Amino acid sequence: MLTVALPKGELLKNSIRLLQSVGLDFSAFLDSGNRQLQITDASGTAKGLLVRGQDVPVYVEYGQAQIGIIGYDVLREKQPQVAHLVDLQFGYCRMSVAVKASSPYKSPLDLPAHSRVASKYVNSAREFFQGLDLPVEIVPLYGSVELGPITGMSEAIVDIVSTGRTLKENGLVEITTLYESTARLIAHPLSYRLNTGNLHQLVEQLREGVLSELPILT
Amino acid sequence: MLTVALPKGELLKNSIRLLQSVGLDFSAFLDSGNRQLQITDASGTAKGLLVRGQDVPVYVEYGQAQIGIIGYDVLREKQPQVAHLVDLQFGYCRMSVAVKASSPYKSPLDLPAHSRVASKYVNSAREFFQGLDLPVEIVPLYGSVELGPITGMSEAIVDIVSTGRTLKENGLVEITTLYESTARLIAHPLSYRLNTGNLHQLVEQLREGVLSELPILT
Repeated sequence: MLTVALPKGELLKNSIRLLQSVGLDFSAFLDSGNRQLQITDASGTAKGLLVRGQDVPVYVEYGQAQIGIIGYDVLREKQPQVAHLVDLQFGYCRMSVAVKASSPYKSPLDLPAHSRVASKYVNSAREFFQGLDLPVEIVPLYGSVELGPITGMSEAIVDIVSTGRTLKENGLVEITTLYESTARLIAHPLSYRLNTGNLHQLVEQLREGVLSELPILT
Repeated sequence: MLTVALPKGELLKNSIRLLQSVGLDFSAFLDSGNRQLQITDASGTAKGLLVRGQDVPVYVEYGQAQIGIIGYDVLREKQPQVAHLVDLQFGYCRMSVAVKASSPYKSPLDLPAHSRVASKYVNSAREFFQGLDLPVEIVPLYGSVELGPITGMSEAIVDIVSTGRTLKENGLVEITTLYESTARLIAHPLSYRLNTGNLHQLVEQLREGVLSELPILT
């Protein structure tokens, strides 16, 4: 039986909707009272595994799930050894550099050398500033990255922006975008190559589901 | 003005209670509707900063907060450059190795070489198994570590256990304890050495608050 790793949080609703379009029903994960982390589809074709977003590529990399759905931002940051198969079009967001609206910095190159940049995405942030040849100190945070500039701990942040509301509420503005992100279908490379459990067919159906332009749930 | 970094989650209630015992009131952080991440105490003596547990030592390390409260487990895992001042006695938990109750492993040394061990605490886990001279592969996860053995991805986990309820619900048993943990008062080393904002006095008051054995809220 195939196992599909699904991410808790923002991408879950559309992921489940997409899988429903190919006949796999994991909608029980959306019930507010649900405590199960593994559900077998009613048709008995596949098992759904509900995990933290960042854990999806781990389960797929180790072959515990043959496919998974996760944001490109996580793939870019963690560089897991998984096959990137389909851009699922939903879950749009962008990785941006933001500073205090009251600061004089209009572009990343305005930041003084050895500035501090707070981020949950330390690899993305480091790579970006190395590309600019601007030496900065990356401060790794796990939550509320916007507190970095507010408390004065950092001059800038590198973080995911979707609507921009959090930035605005905290008096921050984007000064550049590193990359854009959407949800991706990923697979365990060996399972995909060997077509374990007729994986190719499921992937093709999902690809068609995306091309048929299912409405995106917000 | 001094800044105190406080951890969201389990340790918050007792942390606020302890600070109240020395006249600093940050109880507004406990209001369910609270969205503020910074509060100045009514007496104007100190500012509270509400952040993710793992971020507390970051704010203290960078001197953005002069003191903070955080579990020993986080200090042990991240090894931040902060001064460890007082064992606050609350927030007891232990870092344990657990396996499936149905497995034949009764001690870590029963695990086959090159077993997989899933953990959020990769440094603690690696250090422990290196100490045993048992080569294992540490699988880094961010949530629901108990899924590791359940899905068959890993033979064991290294995780925080407080009541043991989560393990039991998932059919797992502890086979050894790496170390025990409680909440700790930490300080920015330079601020503490320079006695910034009369920090020593506050620390002494907090130490006395602990010694006077405030009841621990559960």
